[in-house]
Amino acid sequence: MKVIHYTEAAGQTFNNETVQGVTGRVVIGGDDGAKNFCMRVFTVTGGGFTPKHSHAWEHEIFVHAGRGRIFRAGDWGDVTSGTVLFIPGGEEHQFQNTGSDDLVFVCLIPSGVAEI
Amino acid sequence: MKVIHYTEAAGQTFNNETVQGVTGRVVIGGDDGAKNFCMRVFTVTGGGFTPKHSHAWEHEIFVHAGRGRIFRAGDWGDVTSGTVLFIPGGEEHQFQNTGSDDLVFVCLIPSGVAEI
Repeated sequence: MKVIHYTEAAGQTFNNETVQGVTGRVVIGGDDGAKNFCMRVFTVTGGGFTPKHSHAWEHEIFVHAGRGRIFRAGDWGDVTSGTVLFIPGGEEHQFQNTGSDDLVFVCLIPSGVAEI
Repeated sequence: MKVIHYTEAAGQTFNNETVQGVTGRVVIGGDDGAKNFCMRVFTVTGGGFTPKHSHAWEHEIFVHAGRGRIFRAGDWGDVTSGTVLFIPGGEEHQFQNTGSDDLVFVCLIPSGVAEI
C-alpha cells in the first residue's frame, strides 16, 4: 500500500501560451503497479488555466479546493470544492482558476496514455 | 460532460457490526458511460469506520476532508486532507475516523465489480 500526501509527489509546472500556472503531479501510476487507471493532482494558481483541448480518453475529476470554471459545450460552468466532473473522450474542456487561492483537482485517466 | 457536487448523488448508508457511520455515493459510474473505472465518494462520521476487508481489485483513494487512520500491514497510519492511497488488490484495509468532523474520501475502482 502506498500512502503519501499529494504534495510529496514530484511536480511538473506548465507555463506557455496555452497553459498558465499549472503544476501536475502523478500520485498513483504505472510505477506503483496501478494497471487500470492513473491518478494525477493538478494545482492551478489564481488566474491560471489548463489547455483548451480534447482527446480520445475520458477524465474523472474531483475538485479538492479553490474555485474556478470549466469550459464545456461552448459555455462556462462554475466548479468549487466537492465538484465532480466526468468528461467523456472527445469533449473539449478547459479549467480556469477564477479565484485567488489555488484551484486543486484530482484527475484520473485510463492506463495506456501519457500519465502527464 | 457530467458536472455535479458530490453531495447531489444518492447516498447509501451502512451501519452494522462491521461498518459504522459510512455513507457511500457513486458519483461517476457505468450509468454515465464510464467504461474503465468508477468514482465513489465516502463520508465517515466521527468515530465511524469502514469494514476491515480485502478483495481482488485495487483502490485509488484521495482524502478530501477530515482526519482518520488506515489499517495496513497489521498497523495503523494517519490520513488527512490531501492524503493519497494506492491499495493493491488482496491487501487488507480499513478506515477509521479518529476526529469529530466527517472524514470524506474519494475512492476509485476498476469497472466490472460492484460499484458500491
